[in-house]
Amino acid sequence: MTISLKMRAALKGGSMVRKMFEEGRELKGRFGENNVFDYSLGNPDLEPPEAFKTKVIELINQNEKGLHGYMPNGGLDSVRHRLAGYLSKIHGENIGPEMVIMTVGAAGAINVALKTIVETGDEVMVLAPFFMEYAFYADNHGAKIVAVDSHDNFRPDLGKISEAITEKTRALIINSPNNPTGVVYTLEELKGLADLLRDKSKKYSRPVLLISDEPYRKIVFGGLEVPSVLSLYEDSVVVTSFSKDLSLAGERIGYICVNPKIKNSNDFISAATLANRILGFVNAPALAQRVVAELLEESVDIRVYQERVNSLAGALRGIGYDLVDPQGTFYLFPKSPMKDDLAFIEVLKKELILAVPGSGFSRPGYFRLSLCLDLDKINRSIDGFKRAYHASLAQLRV
Amino acid sequence: MTISLKMRAALKGGSMVRKMFEEGRELKGRFGENNVFDYSLGNPDLEPPEAFKTKVIELINQNEKGLHGYMPNGGLDSVRHRLAGYLSKIHGENIGPEMVIMTVGAAGAINVALKTIVETGDEVMVLAPFFMEYAFYADNHGAKIVAVDSHDNFRPDLGKISEAITEKTRALIINSPNNPTGVVYTLEELKGLADLLRDKSKKYSRPVLLISDEPYRKIVFGGLEVPSVLSLYEDSVVVTSFSKDLSLAGERIGYICVNPKIKNSNDFISAATLANRILGFVNAPALAQRVVAELLEESVDIRVYQERVNSLAGALRGIGYDLVDPQGTFYLFPKSPMKDDLAFIEVLKKELILAVPGSGFSRPGYFRLSLCLDLDKINRSIDGFKRAYHASLAQLRV
Repeated sequence: MTISLKMRAALKGGSMVRKMFEEGRELKGRFGENNVFDYSLGNPDLEPPEAFKTKVIELINQNEKGLHGYMPNGGLDSVRHRLAGYLSKIHGENIGPEMVIMTVGAAGAINVALKTIVETGDEVMVLAPFFMEYAFYADNHGAKIVAVDSHDNFRPDLGKISEAITEKTRALIINSPNNPTGVVYTLEELKGLADLLRDKSKKYSRPVLLISDEPYRKIVFGGLEVPSVLSLYEDSVVVTSFSKDLSLAGERIGYICVNPKIKNSNDFISAATLANRILGFVNAPALAQRVVAELLEESVDIRVYQERVNSLAGALRGIGYDLVDPQGTFYLFPKSPMKDDLAFIEVLKKELILAVPGSGFSRPGYFRLSLCLDLDKINRSIDGFKRAYHASLAQLRV
Repeated sequence: MTISLKMRAALKGGSMVRKMFEEGRELKGRFGENNVFDYSLGNPDLEPPEAFKTKVIELINQNEKGLHGYMPNGGLDSVRHRLAGYLSKIHGENIGPEMVIMTVGAAGAINVALKTIVETGDEVMVLAPFFMEYAFYADNHGAKIVAVDSHDNFRPDLGKISEAITEKTRALIINSPNNPTGVVYTLEELKGLADLLRDKSKKYSRPVLLISDEPYRKIVFGGLEVPSVLSLYEDSVVVTSFSKDLSLAGERIGYICVNPKIKNSNDFISAATLANRILGFVNAPALAQRVVAELLEESVDIRVYQERVNSLAGALRGIGYDLVDPQGTFYLFPKSPMKDDLAFIEVLKKELILAVPGSGFSRPGYFRLSLCLDLDKINRSIDGFKRAYHASLAQLRV
């Protein structure tokens, strides 16, 4: 059976993150799990909070009829009510339950949001470096991804964004706290972005939807607050999941929160709910919905990530690596000591260190480290980073 | 925010099944849950087998690290191995674990299969009456649905299928045991279909993928065997879920089983696995995967559905309704006593009976009853069916 031309191309250009995942499995088989430093995949290694386990068992034992059956496509009423209350508090807006659509993770949420609004040939803008899956998501709905480079310090470059917006720009996806850089956008930056989008929407008589992808909202350091886009720009949605803050990445549970001030909100909600159904998600997994609704205030211990980030960032800087300190997430995105990040990834691999090249995020010359391994292991990897750094410099000198 | 043209059209033509679901909620609020006979949605009312509950609790208590984390996009290795063994037995083929891709229900599986092979402008064939969601699924990937009418007794019409296949036909979706008719295709019928598809694939030098959608495989009556397509036609996949036989519709757990004899199987598997990821499913829910793998031989008590079907089919026939006896599923698809099935649905609604018009399955003049309510309630609804029947005849006489 021949596969489609699109899938053939996609297989060729397939994300490096997953490739590393498979290579990692192979290396671990060869050298032992404990001797490979796998910084490749953003797969949280902290276990979900104990309350997750308790709530699952509690729910199952309640023997509630229909617990695992179909439901409205937007999700269980009780769950949406709970989330609406929580989100109203977090975002400082009056958010009703009808503005919340439960989804199959944030990936499901973004696809639903795009399906809701995108016409074939439209453009979906992202700020590089960016999570490459966004490009596939845009393509699923016949749209083209347009990547706009952020500044050297990974802050959004409003000038470049302004230049790149055209009459075809239908959505802008932002991700703060950011994968891969750990940067958190400030209120000022978001205000600037909102003003810009408002101007452009007016200019082209066609609103640009701001999709704020926020799965790392709770994973911030030093009591930082992540500003909300909802009060800044009415044509916006927040998409997120419980994958990172509750370590439930495999359970595929997330949601869209639609701005209560969005114009024609009934249309938008109806279309997004229908999109959730016809894309084949149908609804977010039932049991997971019920459980996360009880755990809205919970998260894994963020201090563990912060300690890892501080520790490795310090060590790398000590070696000579150049990097921007993350304000959240569990990623580091240092500059590659060699210009060719793909070549440097191979140098790291000789030290049994797995990382993702910046090219995989549309920012060559950097590499991403996902700190989903414990501090002891991180410390044991530092000599490898040191050797790799000096080996690279030696190569440069040749 | 304006929604896309496609979604605007989809909202207008949205499936009647879900509309009935919402209307049902409203009527139940007004007249009481117990007085409304809701035959509209195929939402199994039998609870999952007790073993489901036991297995969930067992798994959660095992405290296995990473139980809820990411995994290979095709699913957990252990789960795929289990399924491969089970499927080899059921389908009489030697099916390896790599041929099984765990999905977000059968809806997810069909979207993955279509994304894998479909080019923009291709045609996806279905046999009417059919589950209307198939049309959305085809459209998601830029394909057009082509519905071919089955015979009056709902058996596949090979002559018509042959005429309708063109060089653009990329897939044929069949559904046996069938929603909405309860018909199970015979080995002879499937052989005929396989021969036909082989001929046409050769003629157009382009294989037609046979997608056999089988969520009702276990729900058959009188010990009937559902023949497998895998030994009959190499370019085929089986897609299914645990929604109906384990009553887990809300948990979104299913799989694709790719024919081990499919040509370029590596390509197909890689593309389907990638499609599962980039469509936003990422992977099937982790906990549900683990649990269903332990319950492959289990099902709800099929005799309950059979008793309901026999009982209501007999009663309706006694009243004068014309219907084909289902060989499986929990649906009846009687002829509407009025030519206009939409009008008859309104007549039934006056009796607080909710049903879906045949038009919603591309077969006007019929209506579908989903027997997801208990026998006592079914019996209490019979007078309503009688009054509706006679009211319709009276209208015809006017």
